[in-house]
Amino acid sequence: MTPLRFAAIGLDHSHIWGQVELLRRAGAELAAFHADEHGLAEPFADRYPGARRVDARRILEDDGIALVVSAAIPCERAPLGIAAMRHGKDFMVDKPGMTSLAQLAEVRQVQRETGRIYSICYSEHFATRCTVKAGELVAAGAIGCVINTTGLGPHRLDPKRRPEWFFRREQTGGVLTDIASHQCEQFLFFTGAPDAEIVAATVANRANPETPELQDFGEILLRAGDATGYIRVDWFTPDGLPTWGDGRLVILGTDGYIELRKYLDPSGQPGADHLILVDRDGVHRIDCSGVELPYGRQLVYDIRERTETAMPQARCFHAMEIALKAQALAERS
Amino acid sequence: MTPLRFAAIGLDHSHIWGQVELLRRAGAELAAFHADEHGLAEPFADRYPGARRVDARRILEDDGIALVVSAAIPCERAPLGIAAMRHGKDFMVDKPGMTSLAQLAEVRQVQRETGRIYSICYSEHFATRCTVKAGELVAAGAIGCVINTTGLGPHRLDPKRRPEWFFRREQTGGVLTDIASHQCEQFLFFTGAPDAEIVAATVANRANPETPELQDFGEILLRAGDATGYIRVDWFTPDGLPTWGDGRLVILGTDGYIELRKYLDPSGQPGADHLILVDRDGVHRIDCSGVELPYGRQLVYDIRERTETAMPQARCFHAMEIALKAQALAERS
Repeated sequence: MTPLRFAAIGLDHSHIWGQVELLRRAGAELAAFHADEHGLAEPFADRYPGARRVDARRILEDDGIALVVSAAIPCERAPLGIAAMRHGKDFMVDKPGMTSLAQLAEVRQVQRETGRIYSICYSEHFATRCTVKAGELVAAGAIGCVINTTGLGPHRLDPKRRPEWFFRREQTGGVLTDIASHQCEQFLFFTGAPDAEIVAATVANRANPETPELQDFGEILLRAGDATGYIRVDWFTPDGLPTWGDGRLVILGTDGYIELRKYLDPSGQPGADHLILVDRDGVHRIDCSGVELPYGRQLVYDIRERTETAMPQARCFHAMEIALKAQALAERS
Repeated sequence: MTPLRFAAIGLDHSHIWGQVELLRRAGAELAAFHADEHGLAEPFADRYPGARRVDARRILEDDGIALVVSAAIPCERAPLGIAAMRHGKDFMVDKPGMTSLAQLAEVRQVQRETGRIYSICYSEHFATRCTVKAGELVAAGAIGCVINTTGLGPHRLDPKRRPEWFFRREQTGGVLTDIASHQCEQFLFFTGAPDAEIVAATVANRANPETPELQDFGEILLRAGDATGYIRVDWFTPDGLPTWGDGRLVILGTDGYIELRKYLDPSGQPGADHLILVDRDGVHRIDCSGVELPYGRQLVYDIRERTETAMPQARCFHAMEIALKAQALAERS
């Protein structure tokens, strides 16, 4: 079978490296890329010498390219994805997939019209082995019916390393749109709910007055049927933590619970992807190092077979809709 | 100095043992006790042969007794405490300190009129070394300004072991009144806020239809100034957990955070009182085994000196007020 050929447009967030690699591991071939900024293009060209650096139009008009991937500045992602879909291509984008409810409405409409795939790479799920494993356990009934998820998503700010756009509300979409969208997707995934009601939402700048548009703290309380979910995100990872964030998720079921310590187990065991399952039989620490990350393989399959195995299109959009509505609610209050 | 003499009235919850012991460790002497039920009185008499079993009136009218302690059925605590205060005695009671806002209003009025102490033993704070240590660290500025607390309070249901009143809404006050009041007190303690706004609250029976008045799940979202707090409580501790509950508290500050694993470190280190502090310098696991629990000593001092060192009377009442208002809000929705 000929490898699926794809191209990257917009390398502004370093998540692009993960997006490209998960496709290459699935056998796809990076054919071309585009970035306006030489400083972003150069290391990319060095790493992928087989990919031509061309302008965006050349990529969109190349019938040999099936998929466009992007980690452009967040507010530029939806227009790019719409252009890609209108050119008959599928699209896989870093989260947030869009930065306003208006963009989401237009993306949804074009996706429906064109029948193309608009996939948002919620990496705290798809690129995290313990999250994938937790999904398997919950689906197998290991903790009964899920009634609550509580997720903490601290991130390291490191302001000197950040580009100008990172500190602009209009360009990022705000803290809930940007980093809580991960957890909105996981709430839907783990509860199986098609959508969720936003009970409450907060955004704030608690301790970064020199960058007033930065929202350094955010939270959402969600409800869907018999389940509720609390999401807390922030840019307060202390310098002393050996990784970018102590991401946690506790999934409470009627017959047990699962705790994920996604990126490290602080003062505990080495490595990442710590999964602790507590059920009627005991406390189990489950090794996730051998868990496959199926998102790339499934997305390549979906592109060929026009299926939705990597993530239902509806969940992809609903997760962003929840985050965007929570963002709007929090900014009104 | 003559030891402070105290008596116990109402042994319905086993918390009474901890309440008596913390006073005895502080040098106070258990002079008498009362319980209607022989099954509750007998083990108590065996353990404390020096304490006379008498009727409640004898205790209230004994001028040699300074303090009444109680773990009566929750709805009976406020009337007992009011009687104790009207008889010139101080009162220390298991949480919840009362089960309705009407009881709270009357307790507050009598406390003001009599000038007696009405202390609620929030044991997840006062009887937990790592919580006390966290209070010292936060007060010393170890994590900067506290902007969020997220607390999980799972409890083991063990329905066969529970008395009839445990399953009655009117007698317990509901799940937020009962077990979330602990965390309401800790929110005020760690943020230093005098009071808090209830943003949202939930109570539910998710999986115990045979005891329909039992609320097996509850949550509260709080806000006070620049801080928010999420509280989740439940009766879903799985049988396989080696203790009654995997109580957690994460305190997020602008310069660091503290995680408490109060009663065990599941699949981690042995023992209780695990405190993990992450700040600019690193990840620190702090041994809390030598931390003093000052509540008993301070309460005995307060009784002698008419001070409020164990806990300000206002915080004691505000914590219950938040829990009771959240309970009412959740039951209206």
